[in-house]
Amino acid sequence: MTAGNSFGHLFRITTFGESHGGGVGVVIDGCPPGLEISKAEIQKELDRRRPGQSAITTPRNEQDEIHIFSGLMDGMTTGTPIMLMAHNKDVKSEDYNNLKSLYRPGHADYTFQQKYGARDWRGGGRSSARETIGRVAAGAIAKKYLKEKLGVEFLAFVEQVGPIRTEIDSETVTAEQVESNIVRCPDADAAAKMIALIETARDEGDSVGGVIRGLIKNSPVGLGEPVFDKLHADLGKAMLSINAVKGFEIGSGFAGSALRGSQHNDEFYTEGERVRTRTNNAGGVLGGISNGETIYFRVAVKPTSTIRKSQNTVNQAQEETVIEATGRHDPCVLPRAVPIVESMAALVMMDHYLRQKAQNW
Amino acid sequence: MTAGNSFGHLFRITTFGESHGGGVGVVIDGCPPGLEISKAEIQKELDRRRPGQSAITTPRNEQDEIHIFSGLMDGMTTGTPIMLMAHNKDVKSEDYNNLKSLYRPGHADYTFQQKYGARDWRGGGRSSARETIGRVAAGAIAKKYLKEKLGVEFLAFVEQVGPIRTEIDSETVTAEQVESNIVRCPDADAAAKMIALIETARDEGDSVGGVIRGLIKNSPVGLGEPVFDKLHADLGKAMLSINAVKGFEIGSGFAGSALRGSQHNDEFYTEGERVRTRTNNAGGVLGGISNGETIYFRVAVKPTSTIRKSQNTVNQAQEETVIEATGRHDPCVLPRAVPIVESMAALVMMDHYLRQKAQNW
Amino acid sequence: MTAGNSFGHLFRITTFGESHGGGVGVVIDGCPPGLEISKAEIQKELDRRRPGQSAITTPRNEQDEIHIFSGLMDGMTTGTPIMLMAHNKDVKSEDYNNLKSLYRPGHADYTFQQKYGARDWRGGGRSSARETIGRVAAGAIAKKYLKEKLGVEFLAFVEQVGPIRTEIDSETVTAEQVESNIVRCPDADAAAKMIALIETARDEGDSVGGVIRGLIKNSPVGLGEPVFDKLHADLGKAMLSINAVKGFEIGSGFAGSALRGSQHNDEFYTEGERVRTRTNNAGGVLGGISNGETIYFRVAVKPTSTIRKSQNTVNQAQEETVIEATGRHDPCVLPRAVPIVESMAALVMMDHYLRQKAQNW
Amino acid sequence: MTAGNSFGHLFRITTFGESHGGGVGVVIDGCPPGLEISKAEIQKELDRRRPGQSAITTPRNEQDEIHIFSGLMDGMTTGTPIMLMAHNKDVKSEDYNNLKSLYRPGHADYTFQQKYGARDWRGGGRSSARETIGRVAAGAIAKKYLKEKLGVEFLAFVEQVGPIRTEIDSETVTAEQVESNIVRCPDADAAAKMIALIETARDEGDSVGGVIRGLIKNSPVGLGEPVFDKLHADLGKAMLSINAVKGFEIGSGFAGSALRGSQHNDEFYTEGERVRTRTNNAGGVLGGISNGETIYFRVAVKPTSTIRKSQNTVNQAQEETVIEATGRHDPCVLPRAVPIVESMAALVMMDHYLRQKAQNW
Repeated sequence: MTAGNSFGHLFRITTFGESHGGGVGVVIDGCPPGLEISKAEIQKELDRRRPGQSAITTPRNEQDEIHIFSGLMDGMTTGTPIMLMAHNKDVKSEDYNNLKSLYRPGHADYTFQQKYGARDWRGGGRSSARETIGRVAAGAIAKKYLKEKLGVEFLAFVEQVGPIRTEIDSETVTAEQVESNIVRCPDADAAAKMIALIETARDEGDSVGGVIRGLIKNSPVGLGEPVFDKLHADLGKAMLSINAVKGFEIGSGFAGSALRGSQHNDEFYTEGERVRTRTNNAGGVLGGISNGETIYFRVAVKPTSTIRKSQNTVNQAQEETVIEATGRHDPCVLPRAVPIVESMAALVMMDHYLRQKAQNW
Repeated sequence: MTAGNSFGHLFRITTFGESHGGGVGVVIDGCPPGLEISKAEIQKELDRRRPGQSAITTPRNEQDEIHIFSGLMDGMTTGTPIMLMAHNKDVKSEDYNNLKSLYRPGHADYTFQQKYGARDWRGGGRSSARETIGRVAAGAIAKKYLKEKLGVEFLAFVEQVGPIRTEIDSETVTAEQVESNIVRCPDADAAAKMIALIETARDEGDSVGGVIRGLIKNSPVGLGEPVFDKLHADLGKAMLSINAVKGFEIGSGFAGSALRGSQHNDEFYTEGERVRTRTNNAGGVLGGISNGETIYFRVAVKPTSTIRKSQNTVNQAQEETVIEATGRHDPCVLPRAVPIVESMAALVMMDHYLRQKAQNW
Repeated sequence: MTAGNSFGHLFRITTFGESHGGGVGVVIDGCPPGLEISKAEIQKELDRRRPGQSAITTPRNEQDEIHIFSGLMDGMTTGTPIMLMAHNKDVKSEDYNNLKSLYRPGHADYTFQQKYGARDWRGGGRSSARETIGRVAAGAIAKKYLKEKLGVEFLAFVEQVGPIRTEIDSETVTAEQVESNIVRCPDADAAAKMIALIETARDEGDSVGGVIRGLIKNSPVGLGEPVFDKLHADLGKAMLSINAVKGFEIGSGFAGSALRGSQHNDEFYTEGERVRTRTNNAGGVLGGISNGETIYFRVAVKPTSTIRKSQNTVNQAQEETVIEATGRHDPCVLPRAVPIVESMAALVMMDHYLRQKAQNW
Repeated sequence: MTAGNSFGHLFRITTFGESHGGGVGVVIDGCPPGLEISKAEIQKELDRRRPGQSAITTPRNEQDEIHIFSGLMDGMTTGTPIMLMAHNKDVKSEDYNNLKSLYRPGHADYTFQQKYGARDWRGGGRSSARETIGRVAAGAIAKKYLKEKLGVEFLAFVEQVGPIRTEIDSETVTAEQVESNIVRCPDADAAAKMIALIETARDEGDSVGGVIRGLIKNSPVGLGEPVFDKLHADLGKAMLSINAVKGFEIGSGFAGSALRGSQHNDEFYTEGERVRTRTNNAGGVLGGISNGETIYFRVAVKPTSTIRKSQNTVNQAQEETVIEATGRHDPCVLPRAVPIVESMAALVMMDHYLRQKAQNW
């Protein structure tokens, strides 16, 4: 609890593992019994986040094969803890010797050293993006459960890369459109420009950031708690806990703060049995509780900190020095972050679904 | 835990109370013993959030006097739960009869009804801004502790109202500047324009939103956990849990996502014994852990939902209807939200300080 | 969380207050909405635990009137936090001046001082039995909910006082029998002897302990978690958290450990639709999960530490000294502990019911 | 959290795994960095709990080799989650086909089926004693930390088997004495009788229970929280969460409840700088907080449920039937439970040490 490697209350995940050592994985506690889920279904989501999947991500080619160690029998969840793990490749830690005593700008090297008095300097240690393997594996289970049980769907896509931005209609965009190109932007024209920008940055040894939009469709009304655990507060924390994320907004977000109340309020109307809103500035959440409209949010991702350029820095002896360009790097993490955003959203919704079920349904 | 009325793990607050009924308050569990704190010190912070404090807030004049019920002896914390409460005024609930069966646009009426199957329709019930009295009271204690023990300081101010925005230097702004005008914007020129805008909106029966900037100065290095409980993830959740907040960004935030890595990375250098960064795009947090630079973040606040204009809506019988202009309203909540932002930041830092102390110091 | 003033996960209570100061109370978070509960129903349980209720308890006559501050509207729970409090009488703390610097044998004075570096020496401070007012008030709500929703019933009684012990049939004992005498032992003969023993001890300035048996009837099958949160583990913790409790056993308990497996195993049989066991050595819990049989357990209570006799002790300056006989004391806390045992059992069952509902039902 | 596979708050373990499937293990979150710990040190504790270690335990010969997957670098804890796992042997699940549809008396088969609507019927599934591998592995780390940091020592031993009981002086008993015979009773004469009794029971296809005494020596003063999380309440829960445990008592326990207050109170005296008590009826805990005396407690263990005798039972179709004697069984689990008791005690103390450090030290 102190050390913050768990997420969720009733559908609770605990991740473990560093980029080096035996592997990275997750224990899921509280999953309802009776869900059919296969290794292949989990692996499919992991393949969307794995390095080396396209020309614009890091060239490291890792398969990240997931193994199911517990919690299933005959392909069904049993209600007991589900442990999922991907083994680490046997990497020589000497490869990182040059980083052993350097604090890389934009990275957690310095703060880890100060926090713990020591740090695993091999490939980022616990701050490695490999940690998200556990999140995506657990998210695959949450996604499937919510889809089967309630029809809830999760979809994220790249809306902006560097200064290139596109407007996508949250109500009509499809998973097929998102997956139709390697940058995971459903607007083909914008996608082409984004890819070109990423390639330029990569060739210059530089990196770019951007914005991911996340959607949750067909949410039931009533999920989220009215005070501290507002649905969008938990979504915000979930997204901000992803490496490199620096901002989160729900619905109208920062832009909405410039409006008048008379412009911003979403008027109610009825559609058959349902109460609906004409506009959706709220982003599907009112007073912290889902109102049944599409939940949408935006996630700001900073440019990757690892670049192939010389940078001034400080070493562990607290001497000023220069960090030299290293070999390969990932010029843009956004395409691979899309399934992570979906997974974290699914984990939040799954937890709030069980909470609502416990107290009120 | 399910119902989300607690915040924090080691310095843990639980708030209770509705706008009607006996009162609103907070229980603080885990406060270290030996802190000297007076009712007056807590009241001072509450007075900054109370309604009726100036011409541009709601005209409701509530004193919100805080009472200390437990956890102190001879003006010192004892380590046992601190209960603080402000009694509610005896308001006739008939005053709200017209709202009893209406879903106000932008409010939580509809989602409460759906979530619980019933709702306290008197003055917003649990969604009332009065709930934040407990947060500010607890925050006053956390602030004092962190100031005395570590020299940490918390400061928030209004940076934007509607479309009026100003740039303030986070390193030099003072509490005196913030408190020098009723809108709590340290830029006097901008403040005057903001006040004029709020008055216009008020007179038109409308409301405006805006942006609050929060600062945490003199943080020790090492607070925040590297995975789910990143310092900025917990700050983000804290801010997003405040009524009307729709967005959060740390450091460079959304704007930073348009930069290149070579522009965004903060280079390290040494200043005496300290390792510092030349720029502060990170906003004082690297890999989820404080790096000793000023922590700064921005909070987007939507325009107040209560306005004096007719709006289309639906009633509890799910019939379409019109909600008519009501009497008084709060045209802009931002000035009163400033101490709430500071308090929530202090609660996050206090919790992370105790967590760091438990595991690593 | 650190400081341990909360109990339960989904039906979670947080108690606050010392014997001196504003009052003692409880915040209940996670109570389902729609439960009808009145102040009188809660007060009725509190009256069973209050001092001065009979000739064999402490002569302090406290009414402990409970006040409902939040979480109810029109006599119904709303799903928001329920705050219940009893104000403290205005007692002169000078009355305790003689105890200010003494460590009373059997009491928490010394350990409090060492733990916190200070302590509230007025009437036991946070260790006062007044803390249980919050438990009993919350328990009254849990009891009512479980009775109405599932037919579960809670019943505790005094089975032993000092060396006087009786055997009561757990399946047939009634609440009326328990309440028929002031010692709350359903066996009238044993009760008379117990009362006589308590009166003797009182007159000698001494105190006696004993054993309370707790029963949970009509539990649904399936409550309790199979690993750490076994139903009887949580019941055990609940009981051991009551002041003066030194032991807990479920079902056959310590006596059962002397048996053979062939004697101890409860054979299954069918009774209509139900699977039942011929014997109930398990005490209604198998593998940590309720099996539908009556849950029964025993709670060992030490003799009250406050006595009217001289005792050797140490003062706060760590000098050896003698504590002299004080005025009034409670010669036997067991009759008043009966409703506390029932309440804690109800809190455990309520929490596990919501947990089961969340994950599995 | 709901599903109860975690234990502890600040030093928090989460166990996973069934008797069948990939393996059983534990994730430890919150371990302080900088502790040197080797696989061999952990394995040594596991070897004390493994089956097949002597003639009086189950003949299943499992090595239970532990693997360290994360959280250590160069033999030192890093502050990140420590994952430890033992792989399961590849057992044919057909061996259990005869148990697939039967509810074994004394086992959790029936309650699992009712709780989850399904169950892993292979070798006990999640209720298998193999789950304790994770507890003992984590306990080995807690033990080492507390020994090095504070000098705290943990020692448990078998005090009673069936009706054979011995009295051991808690202050002088040594680990060497405990480990000097296969039943782990430091009294050689009693041990010989216990072994003979276990052998008789085994040969008759029956089983025996007994009592384990646990000791915690050199505890600092001040651990444990005064209300719900009393040190002995958490110890009680820890012990009651071990399979087959039916009772727990601290200090004088059930026997003490028959005494007078004047007999039971432990008088204080001074010994150099220390405040001590002449007797130790409290068992080292006053008001829920350690007082520096030896903490001792007793744990009642029921006779093993698996026996080689015919028993009446019910099958999954809810028909009455007979379960026939199965092959091998473990006639007495107490010798193997000794390290589990020590480990659970160490986990409780480690958690409370970090809690005390967070709030008060």
